[in-house]
Amino acid sequence: MKIKPLGDRIVVRRDEAEEKTASGILLPDSAKNKPQRGKVMAVGAGKLLKDGTRRGLQVKEGDTILFTAWAGDEYKEGAKGSNILIMREEDVLAVVG
Amino acid sequence: MKIKPLGDRIVVRRDEAEEKTASGILLPDSAKNKPQRGKVMAVGAGKLLKDGTRRGLQVKEGDTILFTAWAGDEYKEGAKGSNILIMREEDVLAVVG
Amino acid sequence: MKIKPLGDRIVVRRDEAEEKTASGILLPDSAKNKPQRGKVMAVGAGKLLKDGTRRGLQVKEGDTILFTAWAGDEYKEGAKGSNILIMREEDVLAVVG
Amino acid sequence: MKIKPLGDRIVVRRDEAEEKTASGILLPDSAKNKPQRGKVMAVGAGKLLKDGTRRGLQVKEGDTILFTAWAGDEYKEGAKGSNILIMREEDVLAVVG
Amino acid sequence: MKIKPLGDRIVVRRDEAEEKTASGILLPDSAKNKPQRGKVMAVGAGKLLKDGTRRGLQVKEGDTILFTAWAGDEYKEGAKGSNILIMREEDVLAVVG
Amino acid sequence: MKIKPLGDRIVVRRDEAEEKTASGILLPDSAKNKPQRGKVMAVGAGKLLKDGTRRGLQVKEGDTILFTAWAGDEYKEGAKGSNILIMREEDVLAVVG
Amino acid sequence: MKIKPLGDRIVVRRDEAEEKTASGILLPDSAKNKPQRGKVMAVGAGKLLKDGTRRGLQVKEGDTILFTAWAGDEYKEGAKGSNILIMREEDVLAVVG
Repeated sequence: MKIKPLGDRIVVRRDEAEEKTASGILLPDSAKNKPQRGKVMAVGAGKLLKDGTRRGLQVKEGDTILFTAWAGDEYKEGAKGSNILIMREEDVLAVVG
Repeated sequence: MKIKPLGDRIVVRRDEAEEKTASGILLPDSAKNKPQRGKVMAVGAGKLLKDGTRRGLQVKEGDTILFTAWAGDEYKEGAKGSNILIMREEDVLAVVG
Repeated sequence: MKIKPLGDRIVVRRDEAEEKTASGILLPDSAKNKPQRGKVMAVGAGKLLKDGTRRGLQVKEGDTILFTAWAGDEYKEGAKGSNILIMREEDVLAVVG
Repeated sequence: MKIKPLGDRIVVRRDEAEEKTASGILLPDSAKNKPQRGKVMAVGAGKLLKDGTRRGLQVKEGDTILFTAWAGDEYKEGAKGSNILIMREEDVLAVVG
Repeated sequence: MKIKPLGDRIVVRRDEAEEKTASGILLPDSAKNKPQRGKVMAVGAGKLLKDGTRRGLQVKEGDTILFTAWAGDEYKEGAKGSNILIMREEDVLAVVG
Repeated sequence: MKIKPLGDRIVVRRDEAEEKTASGILLPDSAKNKPQRGKVMAVGAGKLLKDGTRRGLQVKEGDTILFTAWAGDEYKEGAKGSNILIMREEDVLAVVG
Repeated sequence: MKIKPLGDRIVVRRDEAEEKTASGILLPDSAKNKPQRGKVMAVGAGKLLKDGTRRGLQVKEGDTILFTAWAGDEYKEGAKGSNILIMREEDVLAVVG
């Protein structure tokens, strides 16, 4: 199944949270911070402008990005939790690379 | 009876909530999550622009869509609860397929 | 007496609330839900645009409509309660018919 | 003394509140509802547009109007309470007549 | 010293509060209502428009005006309290005269 | 060191708070009112307009100004508290002089 | 690794907090104030305008800037805390130099 985001939205796979602290202690799920970093899986066709054309997105499939803490809606498929987010491009802070 | 949504609104039939947990336990109604996924039943004529033309919608009848948690107004016909939502297209996150 | 709504406003007669539950039990007034459905009684001349022309409304007298829960201001004439609402067209969700 | 409202504002004399209930019981002042109905006493020159012209108002002196519950600022002259409101035309719901 | 208000702001001297009630009882300071009426002492050069020109104000020095309850910032010079307000013209309700 | 404010921002040195009440009593720091009056130390190049030009500011270095109570961000350099504010020109009420 | 901020965003390294008070007392981490001052490490390509061009930024790499208290999202790489902020240019108050 493929998710095709609308307009200026993108689909992002969030990085896995750290399993251990810097000093090597294993972290329970509730203590893991959700990373604000992930990989772009799919991008929309761009924002529809008033004259009918579209403004393409600045990020592209495969980019590693940083995003705001409140970016996106989580999407969970089936019983196994996943890390898929659908967010607007304006919540992307920077491209890392 | 047919519901004709106005402007950039669409009519969506929300997917049925899961009856069981992943491990097979039956869920009471109050514990079911409302899925943020559904099927488009009808679309409006599009947003009326200032010059009098309309901008057609990006989703069409029959599409399976993902939408935000707060999308739409529920519409209940008669005594039997239904899963009909009337939402704006901007609350649609992505088309699935 | 006739009520002529201004601009993009419309006058709507709200449907009567259900008198009984689906299983036939009579409902007291306080337990009746206010239906989000009604009939258009009058429409304004349309929204006045910046160039001085008006954009006509999409709903017309006689239409049966669905509207949002917070749509409109109630208008009560005399001692007998009525179900007249004056709302903006943007609070209309769909035309039914 | 004459009050000349600015721009798209109008001066309205609110209707007197009902003195009795429908069944004839006299109401004390605190139990009277403030009517959302009144008569237009004066209108402004209209909203000043960006090109320097004015868009005239749709209501005129002498009209009986319905307005929203929160419309206008009350104006009280001297010791005797009055029912004069100064409101923007956008808070007018409809013209009655 | 002269106060020259910027843009669409005006300087207003608020009317003195009533010293007595209508029945002649002297009022302490805390029980006096602040009048929403005053005299225009100075006006700004007008709102600066995008094309670089200014839109002059509709009120002028010497006008007696009515204004909203929350209009303006009070300005107090030295130890003696004064009644000088600096407000935007959009908080002026009407000119009286 | 020089602070060059960006765009439509200005740097203002707030007037010293009164050391005594009108009747000559010395005030502790916590009881001093922060004056809404100060002197302009530096002005930005002006607001950048959409066509790439800038709209110059109406206040200039050396002006004594009145400003709103919530105007600006305080800037403190080193251990000694200062009275430097960086504010937008729209928070300036008037020029005094 | 390099962080490339999007649009009108910039990457800023916040100045180190004071280690001691003015009188020489060592401060614990919790008592240190976060300085609103830092150095620009990278700037975006500028705000994308409606006609497809970009409006370049006013600050440039290497500038020392003052910014608002709520400016930016903190970015922490690995276990060692860092002082990297990603903010919009409109949260920059002034350039210092």
